[in-house]
Amino acid sequence: MKLQPERLNTFISEYKPLVEDQLKTAIIQLNAPEALKSSMLYSLQAGGKRIRPLLLFATLKAFGHKPEVGLDAAAAIEMIHTYSLIHDDLPSMDDDDLRRGKPTNHKVYGEATAILAGDALLTLSFKMIGNIRPEYADANVKLALINRLAEAAGAEGMVGGQVADMEGEGKKLTIQELEYIHINKTGRLLAFSILAGAELAHADQTVKEKLYEFAHHIGLAFQIRDDILDIEGTEENIGKPIGSDTENEKSTYPSLLSLEGAKKALTDHICKAKQVLSTTGLDTTLLEEITDLIGLRNS
Amino acid sequence: MKLQPERLNTFISEYKPLVEDQLKTAIIQLNAPEALKSSMLYSLQAGGKRIRPLLLFATLKAFGHKPEVGLDAAAAIEMIHTYSLIHDDLPSMDDDDLRRGKPTNHKVYGEATAILAGDALLTLSFKMIGNIRPEYADANVKLALINRLAEAAGAEGMVGGQVADMEGEGKKLTIQELEYIHINKTGRLLAFSILAGAELAHADQTVKEKLYEFAHHIGLAFQIRDDILDIEGTEENIGKPIGSDTENEKSTYPSLLSLEGAKKALTDHICKAKQVLSTTGLDTTLLEEITDLIGLRNS
Repeated sequence: MKLQPERLNTFISEYKPLVEDQLKTAIIQLNAPEALKSSMLYSLQAGGKRIRPLLLFATLKAFGHKPEVGLDAAAAIEMIHTYSLIHDDLPSMDDDDLRRGKPTNHKVYGEATAILAGDALLTLSFKMIGNIRPEYADANVKLALINRLAEAAGAEGMVGGQVADMEGEGKKLTIQELEYIHINKTGRLLAFSILAGAELAHADQTVKEKLYEFAHHIGLAFQIRDDILDIEGTEENIGKPIGSDTENEKSTYPSLLSLEGAKKALTDHICKAKQVLSTTGLDTTLLEEITDLIGLRNS
Repeated sequence: MKLQPERLNTFISEYKPLVEDQLKTAIIQLNAPEALKSSMLYSLQAGGKRIRPLLLFATLKAFGHKPEVGLDAAAAIEMIHTYSLIHDDLPSMDDDDLRRGKPTNHKVYGEATAILAGDALLTLSFKMIGNIRPEYADANVKLALINRLAEAAGAEGMVGGQVADMEGEGKKLTIQELEYIHINKTGRLLAFSILAGAELAHADQTVKEKLYEFAHHIGLAFQIRDDILDIEGTEENIGKPIGSDTENEKSTYPSLLSLEGAKKALTDHICKAKQVLSTTGLDTTLLEEITDLIGLRNS
């Protein structure tokens, strides 16, 4: 199996630049201090696979909609993801100097500006959704997106997962505790990317539930792959030193299930993800290809 | 002139507990790690005058509406205000150990949890507005509130003002630069409190513009009074050491205009605020009394 089949490659090369342009435009036009804008833009432009925007676009495609409909929501998601990385890298949290091979935000702009750049990105993300063009989403759809995004990103989602992750440091967790952390810390925003596409496409409840189940499996697959890469990856590919989980005595899927067990769990989630996709009745070719990308990526 | 006339006292004793209950309920019902909820609640319950909620309620009253209509929006504003205090107090920003006479959030919960509690409050504030009861606001009003709140709180408002404030440290600013900082850092969220009331009351554009001008003057009055209190206040009343601005060589209204000049500017803004209020055709008794409270407060 090829890691990135032709169709997905074409899709990525068409839509990744669109969301990157959208992010740049949103920051450049802000009437705000230059240092703040520069700090926000630095982390937004620090690379990354843009998996979340691609999931949103691919979901819209599955419903036969134009991916462009999701451009503002995709930018909003990427802003939230980026703010979470900036805050996670701070000295009082993970204290990371490098992110994707580049100095982290606070290393370049200082801690205070890094915190504020994160705050500003989080705030702006809600405005991005509020400003979706009326022909793409009416007020009720926008409000549904805002409520779901706040749930996915806040205390009951990503932020709660980050707190649980901190609390779990140095402890041997159960697999259930580890899943709670990852479902919230990583999974909820990935799931929002897919559900935002479904919401914008006016999907019915049954299909939304199936897509939510799909999202659950690829969210866990994403994290298991991350843990495996921390053992088997190369510093060159992942942009930061490998082995940091072992060094920090962090509970991971390989540490709880063995490396072989983690690989089995990964395959299992990938299979279940594709299985549920096949029951949606949608054109899910791209979503399947992204699922493979998540399960097999080297960075 | 009495500082808090009877009518305002009655109003405060009726509506301050309502917003405080609303805040407590919103946090308690979160499905999130206890340490995070505790940290969020600690700062929400650390006292304060709840000036912003009172301005929102008094604006609704001026239009003849029930203040209850603004309860969720008031809680949202107080969450944003509280998150900004938590982040401002961090070691990498103002490095304050005390806030209203109590240990600051990071002193109690540690820096990482304090940052995340701030992030979670900011995120939750948008959900509070999204969840306003449909009989109080339709989807279009809610979206207008969310967009205005994001503008007031983000890079183009409060966060931008905080960055400008940091950049101005140790420099002698012009009065225009000082006003830019305060209009954004403090004024925009105060103004939002009033405009949210106007939006919920379906005010017409002319009245909104007058209320915005009113908000501009009380925002500056609020900050000038703050600067004066740093010279003339008592540590007991304001809950932190006085004289910190002078010690940190911060540009303030008294340092740029002299203490007498600052007092004159304060009176001037209070007068202009009341003048514009009197042209709105609304029942503005309470708003006038809050204006006096802002201009004459001792804490």
